[in-house]
Amino acid sequence: MQEYKVAVIPGDGIGPEVVREGQKVLEAAGKKYGFRLDWHSYDLGGERYLKTGEILPDSVLEELKGFHAIYLGAIGHPDVKPGILEQGILLRTRFVLDLYVNLRPIKLYPGVECPLKEKGPEDIDYIVVRENTEGLYAGSGGFLRQGTEHEVAVQESVNTYMGVERCLRYAFELAATRKRRKLTLCGKTNVLTYAFGLWERVFREMAKEYPSVEIDYTHVDATCMWMIKSPEWFDVVVTDNMFGDIITDLGAITQGGLGIAAGGNINPRGVSMFEPIGGSAPKYAGQNKANPVAAILAGQLMLTDLGQAQAAQGLEEAVSRVLPRMQTQSAGRMGMSTSEVGDAIAAEI
Amino acid sequence: MQEYKVAVIPGDGIGPEVVREGQKVLEAAGKKYGFRLDWHSYDLGGERYLKTGEILPDSVLEELKGFHAIYLGAIGHPDVKPGILEQGILLRTRFVLDLYVNLRPIKLYPGVECPLKEKGPEDIDYIVVRENTEGLYAGSGGFLRQGTEHEVAVQESVNTYMGVERCLRYAFELAATRKRRKLTLCGKTNVLTYAFGLWERVFREMAKEYPSVEIDYTHVDATCMWMIKSPEWFDVVVTDNMFGDIITDLGAITQGGLGIAAGGNINPRGVSMFEPIGGSAPKYAGQNKANPVAAILAGQLMLTDLGQAQAAQGLEEAVSRVLPRMQTQSAGRMGMSTSEVGDAIAAEI
Ligand SMILES: CC(C)[C@H](C(=O)O)[C@@H](O)C(=O)O
Ligand SMILES: CC(C)[C@H](C(=O)O)[C@@H](O)C(=O)O
Repeated sequence: MQEYKVAVIPGDGIGPEVVREGQKVLEAAGKKYGFRLDWHSYDLGGERYLKTGEILPDSVLEELKGFHAIYLGAIGHPDVKPGILEQGILLRTRFVLDLYVNLRPIKLYPGVECPLKEKGPEDIDYIVVRENTEGLYAGSGGFLRQGTEHEVAVQESVNTYMGVERCLRYAFELAATRKRRKLTLCGKTNVLTYAFGLWERVFREMAKEYPSVEIDYTHVDATCMWMIKSPEWFDVVVTDNMFGDIITDLGAITQGGLGIAAGGNINPRGVSMFEPIGGSAPKYAGQNKANPVAAILAGQLMLTDLGQAQAAQGLEEAVSRVLPRMQTQSAGRMGMSTSEVGDAIAAEI
Repeated sequence: MQEYKVAVIPGDGIGPEVVREGQKVLEAAGKKYGFRLDWHSYDLGGERYLKTGEILPDSVLEELKGFHAIYLGAIGHPDVKPGILEQGILLRTRFVLDLYVNLRPIKLYPGVECPLKEKGPEDIDYIVVRENTEGLYAGSGGFLRQGTEHEVAVQESVNTYMGVERCLRYAFELAATRKRRKLTLCGKTNVLTYAFGLWERVFREMAKEYPSVEIDYTHVDATCMWMIKSPEWFDVVVTDNMFGDIITDLGAITQGGLGIAAGGNINPRGVSMFEPIGGSAPKYAGQNKANPVAAILAGQLMLTDLGQAQAAQGLEEAVSRVLPRMQTQSAGRMGMSTSEVGDAIAAEI
């Protein structure tokens, strides 16, 4: 029987609760589809940092490389200054494990409340491919004359051919497997002439290798408008790290919110990390009220990545059958508890 | 009688048509409220560029400084490479005339169709103050090893204390005049530690001078979610140039789209420029189908800037009375022509 070693980082706040339900559902999928998951838990997060000062020891990062996948809950603690854990755990893992694609399906499932009038599941079904290791996230920049009235603060977006090429390659390959085969580059070529000069050049060059893929380009400001007004235009959208951060959160709202939005941090040739994209939501922690669907759908992305396509599909179908039974997708207003949602989905597998 | 010298740049596509209606309404306001507008037209835009190669001659820029205000239609021509006119006219004017605040009211008027379920005019009524002269728009950056597989493209966000301070100052002053007196900084402090390190530091320091203003902070990704889910949380939002570009377009969609969204490029101590924020929409040019409301509301912002507060209010009220008579706010589907909308609003003044 195929066995997968999976590192679990439950993390902070609601992380442990939603991860537990995800594991429950993944276990059920393993039984049904014939594979075993060998879980190894890591207590990274705010509690450990507050107790020991440790954020993400090098040795742990080294160990993580030995897994088939990483399954993450949420990072963020009310007693820790914002930025420290996100940068020290989430961003550092993305960089050191070179998780160069952030994959975010934006899919409105039947039965899920959408904030947009006149838009339904047939209109909202696309995937964002976000570059995940460079751009404005490079951490490059600095202060000059800090704290004076002559201060200058510079923040640099660093884009490399290598980084842009592989991200676009992933997006073209993905688009080529889809029914509509359409790939949209989201950028700001009229202002960010250097950063998106490179992106657009490589995009148009690579498009010649994929004659079956229809290409399109939209500025990031217009993209946000279309995501609300005409989301049906999109199939696969590729963009840089910062714009990807913005449009994937906007997309999450259109698919029912953070309770249901999952993402993968992917290194196609290494270990990848899967997560519900919402935060740790401390005010709901430990109350069995948080929505585990995002974590469960992160499990679906993980199964796909592990090569268990059938199990991934079975999991998604099980989720779709339970979603209409939930009152809303918001914590505390689901009409079901966290564990009840997990039980129901596991039972549907 | 008070007289104002106004430079008009009708520009490309639908620009001339919507500007004409704006002038019509502003003339009517002048008659009613007792001021005169002395218009001087400039033929900047795609046609002039294609004929003469001239984009924005220094001498014209010099002349523009002598006006009380600039009234702009739209810039962008199908036969001109994207970027050239936007950068050469719009961005250059912002930079050279130091129009350091981009002011964008996001207001849903009664009778206007909103794409969001469960949100009405009482929920969507806030103003974005966008920094308009620095950040990622500085044009700073470059290519290394261009065209090779070792290429690096760098784009820099340059933020100065001077630039950030005056923009925040404007936002605090504005917030202090509003009923709710709430100011939200939209940034990305957890990743753009330099750029928004400066912004946040100055923001919190300045807040001490405005004890009556309630302050708040949201990351840009979360801001986009709240703008859809809970726009009623916002009163005045202040942000940098790039994020401002993104969130104001998103906001425009929630207030009924580009047909109705107006903006001001403001130098509080100099000449300011007012514009409908939509593009030149070449496919509707010359057909009397474009929506002039955005241009007319840009006129309202201009009157406010000129110190004609009462006339500005009268103009806004006239617009509100006509909006419910329009079928939609989209070009070609208003149930009225461009000039009919202008006539109706002028008549209501
Ligand atoms: C927590 C934060 C650093 C992170 C990001 O900006 O990438 C998050 O918003 C995300 O999208 O995963
Ligand atoms: C045309 C373009 C350069 C401009 C910008 O990015 O600022 C526009 O989108 C705007 O918001 O006024």
